[in-house]
Amino acid sequence: MTEEMLKNFLRKYKEGQIPDEEAASALGKLFVEEMGFAAVDHIRELRQGFPEVVYAEGKTKEQVAAIMESLYERGQGNIMATRASREKYDYVQKLLPEARYDETARIIYIERKALPAEKDGRYILIVTAGTSDIPVAEEARLTARLWGNEVHTCYDCGVAGIHRLFAHLEEIRKANVLIVIAGMEGALASVVGGLTDKPVIAVPTSVGYGASFQGMAALLSMLNSCATGVSVVNIDNGFGAAVMASKINHLSRGEE
Amino acid sequence: MTEEMLKNFLRKYKEGQIPDEEAASALGKLFVEEMGFAAVDHIRELRQGFPEVVYAEGKTKEQVAAIMESLYERGQGNIMATRASREKYDYVQKLLPEARYDETARIIYIERKALPAEKDGRYILIVTAGTSDIPVAEEARLTARLWGNEVHTCYDCGVAGIHRLFAHLEEIRKANVLIVIAGMEGALASVVGGLTDKPVIAVPTSVGYGASFQGMAALLSMLNSCATGVSVVNIDNGFGAAVMASKINHLSRGEE
Amino acid sequence: MTEEMLKNFLRKYKEGQIPDEEAASALGKLFVEEMGFAAVDHIRELRQGFPEVVYAEGKTKEQVAAIMESLYERGQGNIMATRASREKYDYVQKLLPEARYDETARIIYIERKALPAEKDGRYILIVTAGTSDIPVAEEARLTARLWGNEVHTCYDCGVAGIHRLFAHLEEIRKANVLIVIAGMEGALASVVGGLTDKPVIAVPTSVGYGASFQGMAALLSMLNSCATGVSVVNIDNGFGAAVMASKINHLSRGEE
Amino acid sequence: MTEEMLKNFLRKYKEGQIPDEEAASALGKLFVEEMGFAAVDHIRELRQGFPEVVYAEGKTKEQVAAIMESLYERGQGNIMATRASREKYDYVQKLLPEARYDETARIIYIERKALPAEKDGRYILIVTAGTSDIPVAEEARLTARLWGNEVHTCYDCGVAGIHRLFAHLEEIRKANVLIVIAGMEGALASVVGGLTDKPVIAVPTSVGYGASFQGMAALLSMLNSCATGVSVVNIDNGFGAAVMASKINHLSRGEE
Amino acid sequence: MTEEMLKNFLRKYKEGQIPDEEAASALGKLFVEEMGFAAVDHIRELRQGFPEVVYAEGKTKEQVAAIMESLYERGQGNIMATRASREKYDYVQKLLPEARYDETARIIYIERKALPAEKDGRYILIVTAGTSDIPVAEEARLTARLWGNEVHTCYDCGVAGIHRLFAHLEEIRKANVLIVIAGMEGALASVVGGLTDKPVIAVPTSVGYGASFQGMAALLSMLNSCATGVSVVNIDNGFGAAVMASKINHLSRGEE
Amino acid sequence: MTEEMLKNFLRKYKEGQIPDEEAASALGKLFVEEMGFAAVDHIRELRQGFPEVVYAEGKTKEQVAAIMESLYERGQGNIMATRASREKYDYVQKLLPEARYDETARIIYIERKALPAEKDGRYILIVTAGTSDIPVAEEARLTARLWGNEVHTCYDCGVAGIHRLFAHLEEIRKANVLIVIAGMEGALASVVGGLTDKPVIAVPTSVGYGASFQGMAALLSMLNSCATGVSVVNIDNGFGAAVMASKINHLSRGEE
Amino acid sequence: MTEEMLKNFLRKYKEGQIPDEEAASALGKLFVEEMGFAAVDHIRELRQGFPEVVYAEGKTKEQVAAIMESLYERGQGNIMATRASREKYDYVQKLLPEARYDETARIIYIERKALPAEKDGRYILIVTAGTSDIPVAEEARLTARLWGNEVHTCYDCGVAGIHRLFAHLEEIRKANVLIVIAGMEGALASVVGGLTDKPVIAVPTSVGYGASFQGMAALLSMLNSCATGVSVVNIDNGFGAAVMASKINHLSRGEE
Amino acid sequence: MTEEMLKNFLRKYKEGQIPDEEAASALGKLFVEEMGFAAVDHIRELRQGFPEVVYAEGKTKEQVAAIMESLYERGQGNIMATRASREKYDYVQKLLPEARYDETARIIYIERKALPAEKDGRYILIVTAGTSDIPVAEEARLTARLWGNEVHTCYDCGVAGIHRLFAHLEEIRKANVLIVIAGMEGALASVVGGLTDKPVIAVPTSVGYGASFQGMAALLSMLNSCATGVSVVNIDNGFGAAVMASKINHLSRGEE
Repeated sequence: MTEEMLKNFLRKYKEGQIPDEEAASALGKLFVEEMGFAAVDHIRELRQGFPEVVYAEGKTKEQVAAIMESLYERGQGNIMATRASREKYDYVQKLLPEARYDETARIIYIERKALPAEKDGRYILIVTAGTSDIPVAEEARLTARLWGNEVHTCYDCGVAGIHRLFAHLEEIRKANVLIVIAGMEGALASVVGGLTDKPVIAVPTSVGYGASFQGMAALLSMLNSCATGVSVVNIDNGFGAAVMASKINHLSRGEE
Repeated sequence: MTEEMLKNFLRKYKEGQIPDEEAASALGKLFVEEMGFAAVDHIRELRQGFPEVVYAEGKTKEQVAAIMESLYERGQGNIMATRASREKYDYVQKLLPEARYDETARIIYIERKALPAEKDGRYILIVTAGTSDIPVAEEARLTARLWGNEVHTCYDCGVAGIHRLFAHLEEIRKANVLIVIAGMEGALASVVGGLTDKPVIAVPTSVGYGASFQGMAALLSMLNSCATGVSVVNIDNGFGAAVMASKINHLSRGEE
Repeated sequence: MTEEMLKNFLRKYKEGQIPDEEAASALGKLFVEEMGFAAVDHIRELRQGFPEVVYAEGKTKEQVAAIMESLYERGQGNIMATRASREKYDYVQKLLPEARYDETARIIYIERKALPAEKDGRYILIVTAGTSDIPVAEEARLTARLWGNEVHTCYDCGVAGIHRLFAHLEEIRKANVLIVIAGMEGALASVVGGLTDKPVIAVPTSVGYGASFQGMAALLSMLNSCATGVSVVNIDNGFGAAVMASKINHLSRGEE
Repeated sequence: MTEEMLKNFLRKYKEGQIPDEEAASALGKLFVEEMGFAAVDHIRELRQGFPEVVYAEGKTKEQVAAIMESLYERGQGNIMATRASREKYDYVQKLLPEARYDETARIIYIERKALPAEKDGRYILIVTAGTSDIPVAEEARLTARLWGNEVHTCYDCGVAGIHRLFAHLEEIRKANVLIVIAGMEGALASVVGGLTDKPVIAVPTSVGYGASFQGMAALLSMLNSCATGVSVVNIDNGFGAAVMASKINHLSRGEE
Repeated sequence: MTEEMLKNFLRKYKEGQIPDEEAASALGKLFVEEMGFAAVDHIRELRQGFPEVVYAEGKTKEQVAAIMESLYERGQGNIMATRASREKYDYVQKLLPEARYDETARIIYIERKALPAEKDGRYILIVTAGTSDIPVAEEARLTARLWGNEVHTCYDCGVAGIHRLFAHLEEIRKANVLIVIAGMEGALASVVGGLTDKPVIAVPTSVGYGASFQGMAALLSMLNSCATGVSVVNIDNGFGAAVMASKINHLSRGEE
Repeated sequence: MTEEMLKNFLRKYKEGQIPDEEAASALGKLFVEEMGFAAVDHIRELRQGFPEVVYAEGKTKEQVAAIMESLYERGQGNIMATRASREKYDYVQKLLPEARYDETARIIYIERKALPAEKDGRYILIVTAGTSDIPVAEEARLTARLWGNEVHTCYDCGVAGIHRLFAHLEEIRKANVLIVIAGMEGALASVVGGLTDKPVIAVPTSVGYGASFQGMAALLSMLNSCATGVSVVNIDNGFGAAVMASKINHLSRGEE
Repeated sequence: MTEEMLKNFLRKYKEGQIPDEEAASALGKLFVEEMGFAAVDHIRELRQGFPEVVYAEGKTKEQVAAIMESLYERGQGNIMATRASREKYDYVQKLLPEARYDETARIIYIERKALPAEKDGRYILIVTAGTSDIPVAEEARLTARLWGNEVHTCYDCGVAGIHRLFAHLEEIRKANVLIVIAGMEGALASVVGGLTDKPVIAVPTSVGYGASFQGMAALLSMLNSCATGVSVVNIDNGFGAAVMASKINHLSRGEE
Repeated sequence: MTEEMLKNFLRKYKEGQIPDEEAASALGKLFVEEMGFAAVDHIRELRQGFPEVVYAEGKTKEQVAAIMESLYERGQGNIMATRASREKYDYVQKLLPEARYDETARIIYIERKALPAEKDGRYILIVTAGTSDIPVAEEARLTARLWGNEVHTCYDCGVAGIHRLFAHLEEIRKANVLIVIAGMEGALASVVGGLTDKPVIAVPTSVGYGASFQGMAALLSMLNSCATGVSVVNIDNGFGAAVMASKINHLSRGEE
C-alpha cells in the first residue's frame, strides 16, 4: 500500500465523504486483505519498510502461494516465507517464477531489493557453537540479508575448544550486532557476551539430546547469562534473531 | 431414550413391579447400552438436548461406527464424532449413508436438526490469531452449528498487526459469546477480553515451536489473562469451547 | 585502569622485560584485583565505558562495600550495586559518603557522570503492564540513566484496557528503543511490538499468582511473541534489559 | 465517566474544535486518569457496568487507597479491591469511611448498588470440595454479589463421599451457572459437569501438598475434564470465576 | 530352579565342599542364568510363585525368545512377555509352539497353570473411564488371570455420565481389590475410591491430548486423590497394577 | 450413624411416608451433618469401620474442634486429625479432654478402640531410608495403629549402606504389608520390592535438596520402580499409605 | 569397627559357634548401631577409610550429637556433619569439646587426622563463577581437606570476564582434579572443561533468580556440557563433589 | 598437529617474523582447520592425547566424512564418530577403507592404537540395570577401549533381583572406576555406589515409559543419590561417561 492511498483516505474522511460509522471498518479493509483463511497485512511495509513475512508451517501450499502473490502484487519489497518445505516451494514457484528456495534455511524468497554493493562496515556477525546449528544460522543469515544487512558468519566455534573462538576475536570485536546460536548448554552466548560491548542476540537451538529437553537447557542457560547485553529469542528462531539484529543495525545507521 | 420410557420405569418401581435390589441396576441398563468396549449414554440427549459425542481418537473404526449407529437408532438429535480420520469416516459412511465428513474439522456428523433459517442475532464469534489455528476453529465452528447456534468467524487477527483485529471491532462488540483461538503467546485472548463485556472462551493451540512447548505457553498465558471474563479450555480443544459457548448462548435465549 | 597502564605493559613485554612464562599471569593481575572472595574486573570500564556492576544478592555487606570501594578508587565512571537491601546501603554509605540509594529500584549508586542537559531525542521508553511491575521498571530506569540514556516511562498500560496504551501511541512511535515489562500473561510485549518498528526488550516479571508460576507464564509468552523485533531477558531482570537497551541506544548515536 | 462527557467530546472533534493530531491523546486522557504509578480506567464502568477492580497485591496501601478514591469520586458503581490485607483496609477506611472488609475473601469494598430484594431465581451456585477451599469460594461469592447476582453455596462436597454432593442434586440442577472450586485432584469439576447442562466455571485451588504442586494437579485435571461445558480459570482465582459467571448470568437475563 | 537344588548347595557349603571365596559367586550362578545380554532370574519363581516377566520393549526378538525359552525349560509356571509386538510373537512362536498372543494386551504368554474352575468369589474388578483405556485394561486383565486371579471388568464408566458407573455399584462393592484405569483428568479413581472400602490401584493412562501431557494430568490427579485407600502405579502400567492387585488378592486367601 | 437408623429410613420410604421428591435430600441429610463450612460424613464409619479423618491444614482451630466433636458424639470409633499443629490441639483438648497429640506425627487423636493384646502376626512393616523421613513414618505408624493394625518399624535403612537393610531381612520377609518411605532418590522402594513378595506401598518424601524438587525425584523414581508389587502415594503422605496398608492387612484377615 | 572384630566373627561362624539362622542378623548388628531413629554405619570407615558423614538437615540437635558421639567413640577418622546450623553446633560442642564449626561451609567437624605437611602436588582445584557461590565452595573445600586432600581455590572467575579465568590458567592446567561451581547459566563448567584434560566435577548452585529456577538452569547446562570429561552432582552439593574428587585424587596416588 | 609445528610458530613470533596484529589469528588457524561448516580442532590430540570426536547427529554424511578425513590425515590417534547411522558409515567407508562400524554402539571408528596385550588390572566396569540399556553401554564400552582402557561389563543386574548384582560383587570391588547405566528409576547407581569406594559415573537412560519422561526420572534419581562418590552425565550419554572414566583411569596410572 502506498502512502498516497492512505492520505487520500484520510482527506475523504475529514471531508465527510466517509461516514463515521463506516470509517474504522473501511480503513481496516484498506490495510488488510481479507482472504478468509488469512488477513494479509499491507500496512506493514509502509510502517516498517518490510512486508509481512509468511510463516509457512501449518499452512497449505495453496495458502502460502496466495499470500505471497498478494504481497508480491501490492508491495515492492523483498518477500519471504519461512519454515517452508521444498514441496511448498515447487507450488509457489509455478505462480511466482522469480521465487527462489534456500534448502538449508528452509526459506522461499523473492529478492527485489538487493544489498548495495558498497558497504559501510556495519555488519551483523552470526556465531554458532556447532555444525548442527547451521540450519538455524542460515535462516538468520538469509533473513538478515533480505532485510538489507551485511552479514558475516563464524560457524562451529563452541567453548569446548575455546581457541577456535579466539581465532575470530577481531571479527567479533568489530561486529555491530552479534547473533549467537548454540544448543546443548548454550554457554557460547555468555562467552561471546563477555568479549564484545555490542548487543548480542542469543538463539538457543534444539540441538542436543537427553536433558537438553529440545533446547530448554540452552534457553534457560542464555536467559541466565552472567554477561550483560545479551537478550534471547525463542528456540531455533533464527528468523526472529535476524529481524531484531536488523532493526538494531539499521538504527545505528540512522535508517530507522 | 424418550421421556415416556423413563416415566414408565419409575411407575413400575413405585408399584413394586421392580424389586428394590434390582432397581438401580435396571435403571442403569435403561440409560446405558453396554457394548463391552463402550457404555453408550442414552440419557444425555434427554437431559441435555444433545446426544453423547464420540471421541474417535483411540477407538477402532468398528467401535466408532457401532456407537454412532446406536446413537442414530435410539435418538433424534445431531450426531458427531470428533478427531476422526477419513479412514474411519469411510467405514462409518457405509453403515450410515447420511454421515458427512469435514476434513479440516476432522468431524464425522449427521445433521438431522438444521439451524432455523430465521436468526435472532445472538451469534457466537470465533476469532483466531493465525491461519494455522483454523483446524481448531473449524472444529469449534461445526460443533457450535450442530448444537444449534449461529456462528461468525474472524480468522488471522493476531495482535502483531492489531489493526487487523480492530477492523472487526463492531462484530466483536455485537457477539453474544466469543471463542478466541491462539497459539504462540496467546495474547489475543487478553486483547479481545478487553474489547468486549461478553464471556470469552479461550482456546490455546499447539501452533508454535520451541518454547511454546506444544501449546503450554499459550495455555499459561490465557490462564493468567489480565482481562476479566476469560476462561480457558484444554489445548486444541475447539470442541469443548464450542459446547461451553453453546450452553451460554442457549441460556441467553432462555432455552436451557 | 587507564589505557596508559595497558600500553606500558605491552611495550615491556615486547622488549623482553616480562618473561614469556609470566606474561599471561601478569597481565591478568593488572586487569583483575584479586580479593579472595571476589576478582574485581578493572578492564571492563576500559572496554565498555562502564565499570563492573555489583550484584549484591548473596554477598555480605562487607563484600559489597569492599568491591564498590575498589571500583571507586580505580575508575571514574558511575558505580552501582543492584538487588541491594537498605541495610547493605547503610554500611556502604559510611565508607563511601557519596553513595545514594533508590528504595524502589533497590540500587546503591554513585553518579559521577551526570546526563548532559542537552538531549538529542533518542530516548528509551519503559512501558509496564501494571503498578506491581514498577520495582522492576525502576531498576531499569535508574540503570539506563546511570549508563547515560534519556529515559521516558509509561506505567500501568496493560492490554486489558488497551485504550490506556493507545493514549501513549505517539511516545511509543518516537522512542528509539523500548523496554516492555509485564507479569501475568505478558501480552503487552506482543502488542507494543506490533505498534513500533524499533527494537523491543521484553522483561517478564514474577507478578501474578497460581499458574503464572513465578513469571514463567509471562516468560514463555514473550519468547513466543508473534511480533517481530522482540527479544527477552530473565524474569524480573530490569537491570539486564536496561544494559541491552543502552547498548542499542548508544550504537544509534555512533557512540559505541 | 458519564456518557454525556463522551458524546460531548466526539461532537467537538467532528466540528474541528479538537485538532487531528491531539485527538487520540485527548480522548485517552478523558478515559484514563494518569497517576504516575497507575492509569485508572474510567471507561470500564461505562462499557461494562462495573468499575475497574483493584488488584491490591504488589501495591502499597497508599496506591490502593488513591485508586479507590479516584474510582469512588468519578463513578457510581460498587468498588472493590481484591487480595487485600487488613492493614491496607485500615488505611483505606480512614479515607473512605464507607469501605468494608471481608476477612475471609480478603476484599475491601464499597457497596453502593445493593442487590434487588426481589429475585428471579437465576442464581449462581458455588460448590467447593473441602473446607480449605472456602477462602477462594468467599472471594467468588462476594464478587458475584457485588456484580449484582444472587449466589448460593454448597461447601465441602468433595467426591470422596459422593452422597454429600448428591444431597444437593436439586440445587445443582436448578442453578443457572455453576462455579466449582477444588484443590487436590480437582475431580469435583468433572462430576458436577456431568450432573448439569449449565455452564460450569472450574477453579483449581492450591489446597493440597506434595504432588499437588501448588494447584497444578487440580488445574491439569480440570483442563482435561471429560465432562463438556467446563472451562477453567487460574489457580485460586475466585474473583475471575465470579466475573465470568456474572457475565453469563446477566446475559441470560438479557441484561448485557 | 527347584527347592532341592538350593538345599543341596547349602549342605555342600556347610560341609566345606564349596570354598568360602567361591560361595557367593557360585550361589549367584545357580540363581541366575547369565546370557551376556540378560541375567535370567530363576529364583523368582521359587520365591514368588511366578517366574520373571519379560519386558519386551527395547529387546530384540532373538533376546525375547531366548529368555522365554530359558524360563520355559527351567520352570513350571505361566510365562509372559509384555509390550510385545506381533513380529516378536511370530519369532517366539516358532521356538515355543505353545506360545499365544493377545493383540490388544500386547502380551506373549504360555499358560501352563490354568485358573481353577471353582471360584471363591474373591475377584479383582477392573474399571476403565473410556474405550480408549481398554488396551491398558486388557494388559492388566490378562496378567491378573495368568497370576491366578478371577477378574471382572467394567469398561467405559467415566464420571461425565456417572449413572453408567452406578449401574455397576453392586459389582464394585463386592470386589476384593479394584484397578481403576483412566486418562484425561483421572477423576474416576477418586469416585470409585469413595464407593468401596477395598484397596484401589489407580492406573493413569496417556489417553488425552493437550494439557494431559501424555498422562501427567491423570497421574497427578490420582496421586492427589481425596479418597483414602488409593495408590498409584506408572502411566499405562496395566501390568504393574495387576501384579499389585494379585498380591493383595492372594494375601486375602492366605496364599502368600 | 447406626445401621438401625438407616434401615428405619428405608422402611419409611418404601411405605410411602417419605415422598419421592424429598427422599434423596432427606437421606443425604441423615448421612451428612451440614455445618456451613463442613459437611461431616457420618456414613463413613458405617461403611468402612472408621470415621472420617479430619485434614487439619487450611482449617481454623474452631473448625477442627467442631468436626471432631461431631464425630465424637455420633460415632464409636477412633478419631483423628492429621497435619495438626500443637496450637490446634490445645484448642481441641479443652473441648475433648480425651484427645491426645503426637508431636512428631502431628496427629490429634482419641483412641476408643485399642488394639487387642493378642496378635496374629500379620503386621505392617514401615521402613525408612533416613532419620529425616521419620515424621512421615510416624504419621503412618500412628494411623495404622488407630486403624487396628500391629505395626513394626525399621528406620534409617537406606541403600547407601545396604547391609543395614539386610540386617532386617527376616523382619522384611515376614511382614504382611510393607510401607517404604524415602526421600532423595527413593531407591529403597525398588530394593525392598525385590526382597519381598508382599505388597509394598511406597511413600516419597520431600527430604532432599536441589534436584530433589521437593520430593519429585523420589516420586518419579518410585513410580518407575523396576520391582513388581510396588504402588505409590502422594509425597509425604504417611497417612494415605497407612490406610492403604491397613485395608490390605484387614483383607488378609478376612475382616473387610 | 576394627578389622580384628570382623575376622573374629567370621571365624566363629565357620566353627559353628554362630548358628546359620542368626548369622546374617548378628553380622548386621556388628556393623550397624541401631539407635531407633538412626542406624549408624560402622563398617564404612573400615571399607572406605572415612566414617559415615552426618547430614544434619532434618535431624534434631540431639540426634546429630548422638550420632557424632557414636562415630567418635567407635572410630578413629575425621568426623563431620554437613548442613548444620550454629545452634546444632553449640549443642554438639558441649558433648564433644573437640568439635569445630565452619560458619560459611555450615560443617561441624572433628579433625583427628591432619593433612601431612609434605605435599606431592596432586591438588584439587575449586573454581567458582561468583562470590555468591562461595558457601558451596567452602563446603567442598573443607570436606576435601578432611578427606585428606590438598585443595586450591580460585573464586569469582565467571565467563563474563573471561580474562579473570585465564589469569589462573597455569593453576588450572596443573590441577589433578577440578571442581567447578557455578549458578546462573553454569557456562564455567564447559569453559574449564575445555581448558584441562583432567576430570571435572561440576556443581550447579541455586545462585540466580527468575528463570534459574533454583539452580535448574545451571544443572541442565552442565549436564549438556559440550566439553568432555565433565560430570555433575546435585545442585549446591559441594560435599558430594568433594567426595567424588577425593576418591579420584586418592586413586591417582595409588591409595585406594 | 605435531609439537614441532607449535614450537616453530612460537619461535617465529618471538623473533618478530609474525607481526603482533596477526599472531592470535595465525595461531588459531594452525590449531583449527576452518571448513566453513566446521572448525576441526587439531590441538586436542596434542593436549589430550585423543583427537576431537565427531558427533554425527545433525551433520550430513558428507560433513562427517570430511571431518574424519581431516582428523585421519593430520593426526595419529584413534578416530571416532558417535551417534552415526549405518548410512553415514557406508559413505565414510568409501573414503576411509579402514573405518569400522559398531551397529549397537552406533560408532564409526578407526582404531590405529590398539590396547596393549599386557594388562595392569586397572579396568573400568560397566554395569547395566537391564537388557534395554545395552546400546548405551556399548557406546561407553567401545569409547573406553578406543581411549586405551581395559573394560569389563556386567549387564542386566538391576536391583529388582538384587542377588544378580551380588553375584558380581568381587568384580565390582576390584574395578578401578565404575560406570552404572540404568533407566526407569535408576536405583542401581545408589546401590553400586554403596558397594564400592571407587568413583562411580552414573548414566541415566531413556529406557522406561510413562512417568520416566524419557529418562528424567532416572536422571533426578541419580543426582539425588544417597551414596557418595557418584556423579552423573547426560541421559543416554555413554560416550561422555566413558571419557570421564577414562580420564580417571589414566590418572590412576600416572599417565595424565
